Amino acid sequence: MTQGPVISTIHCMADVWDAYRPELDGVEDRVRKNLDSSVALVNTVAAHILSGGGKRIRPLLLQLSARLCGYSGKDHHQLGSLVEFIHTATLLHDDVVDDADIRRGRKTARKVWGNQISILVGDYLYTKAMCQVVEFRSQGINEVLAEACKKMAEGEVLQLYYNGNPAMPEIDYIKIVEHKTAGLIAAACRMGAILADASETQQEALFRFGQYLGIAFQVADDTLDYTANGEFLGKTIGQDLRQGKATLPLLHLLQHCSEQDRLMIKDRMETRTLSTADLERILSLMTDFGSIMYAMDRARTYIAAAKHELEIFEDSTARRALTVAADYMITRDR
Amino acid sequence: MTQGPVISTIHCMADVWDAYRPELDGVEDRVRKNLDSSVALVNTVAAHILSGGGKRIRPLLLQLSARLCGYSGKDHHQLGSLVEFIHTATLLHDDVVDDADIRRGRKTARKVWGNQISILVGDYLYTKAMCQVVEFRSQGINEVLAEACKKMAEGEVLQLYYNGNPAMPEIDYIKIVEHKTAGLIAAACRMGAILADASETQQEALFRFGQYLGIAFQVADDTLDYTANGEFLGKTIGQDLRQGKATLPLLHLLQHCSEQDRLMIKDRMETRTLSTADLERILSLMTDFGSIMYAMDRARTYIAAAKHELEIFEDSTARRALTVAADYMITRDR
Repeated sequence: MTQGPVISTIHCMADVWDAYRPELDGVEDRVRKNLDSSVALVNTVAAHILSGGGKRIRPLLLQLSARLCGYSGKDHHQLGSLVEFIHTATLLHDDVVDDADIRRGRKTARKVWGNQISILVGDYLYTKAMCQVVEFRSQGINEVLAEACKKMAEGEVLQLYYNGNPAMPEIDYIKIVEHKTAGLIAAACRMGAILADASETQQEALFRFGQYLGIAFQVADDTLDYTANGEFLGKTIGQDLRQGKATLPLLHLLQHCSEQDRLMIKDRMETRTLSTADLERILSLMTDFGSIMYAMDRARTYIAAAKHELEIFEDSTARRALTVAADYMITRDR
Repeated sequence: MTQGPVISTIHCMADVWDAYRPELDGVEDRVRKNLDSSVALVNTVAAHILSGGGKRIRPLLLQLSARLCGYSGKDHHQLGSLVEFIHTATLLHDDVVDDADIRRGRKTARKVWGNQISILVGDYLYTKAMCQVVEFRSQGINEVLAEACKKMAEGEVLQLYYNGNPAMPEIDYIKIVEHKTAGLIAAACRMGAILADASETQQEALFRFGQYLGIAFQVADDTLDYTANGEFLGKTIGQDLRQGKATLPLLHLLQHCSEQDRLMIKDRMETRTLSTADLERILSLMTDFGSIMYAMDRARTYIAAAKHELEIFEDSTARRALTVAADYMITRDR
């Protein structure tokens, strides 16, 4: 193998984007061409969110997984596109469920066209993706994707079930994150391996890789909600807490703070009455008790576990790119 | 064939239910067993609507189509159950989109648990059904079902697009009905034929049979909205019009009434301000211009076209049952 010189060019995420940009353009091309509903409004609404600045992380991971396992074809363009359709369908429904007005700094579809259209165009993107996946005639791909979609829906319901409840066990928080976020990322990685006719061992390693990555990604994203520069991320700090969502930093804090503070947080979650002073107190307590650090440590641990899964593969450009992408998952917003 | 005595027992819908009750109990059994989410709330909400008095028309038609083509196995229980899951998913989302409080005389899931849960449990039922269909390992079934689901979503968006607009062409009304209602019924019939390894000709005939049936069913249902006894159907007269939905009787009326009445109807649809006096005037105009009769004639014409499709099959209990079921589709509420 004379991949040395190529491998050495992948050092940071910008290198990954550079190296795989033409491939991702192939995905973009499919995304555009697949917006071909005979109902024009469907295409307009779907295009609004599909061209909303998403980084195509799932198609990238799918492609890198395929290449890692020796795949040299082009089917990952279409497969990546349909995974992005499914991801977009969940975003449309999430924004309705969360009453969200802004996503990635732009008005949400529900803000522009209303909840009804967002629900139905979400359904359309789901079902359109199902039509496309069927065309692959791959039992493995069908099974992996359907299971991931089911888990996403279950994760969303579980999250809603715990809404406003600060007594959620950490294990259920991880279950929610694994279901609603990690499932589709893990499926994307495994489908890449399936495209390459990889062994069951390789498929499972890449599935776990994606799963750990997805958990880390969501944990970091949830933590960013208490730390991020609001303008940069297009959202304000403490948004999850305002919506009654307990995430890892808060669960950590609730286990360590005084009974009085615990009751204050519980009350604000249940009554959705968080003031700026409350939030400042909570952020200060999180610093005191190391809750942010704890959550980010957990995220980093999952990233390490993910990278460990790559060790069964020989060194290659794709493996280096996956390693760099793994670290990238917890350094930025989705 | 000595089916004579058996055939003669199928004269009305009660005979069909009697003859096929044990089989439909098999579907019920699968429906119950398939509600096995690890998230308990999912099962509770799904059971609320799945046990809400639906007649399992789609599983019945699937089964009759399978038997018509000589199928003797039991796979139609699971396939019928998953079709019912998909139908239920669309009802959950429809009730959110329509702000509906009552369905079949009971509170809707959104009224009991809220819109958020209804959206997400709808997503769950969709994706659960996709997991189940994949287990059949049938490319034909995968394709037919995915296409039907996509068409349903498109039909719903198109219906919403025309909401409040009385200038919808009749051809677009039929397109909406064909997509949102007939697609899944047609798919159910075709999947029955696929289970039986029926010829392409038979599959297509049963698909068209289901499509005509579905269009007739929805046209009749839309017409009932202007004629039905409110208490019996669990809904009040003129509900579609109140929601800004133009259906066939109204489209007919708009083509025949005076300009003054047309402007009155247009105004009430656009402003959602239909008074009882307005409704009474519209119902009286519909009687004068024969709009109800026109719409029901259209429904009956579709039923006749559906029955015509059955002529390529030999006489049998299943064929008689399908003929009786066809007439039944336009004589009652769903």
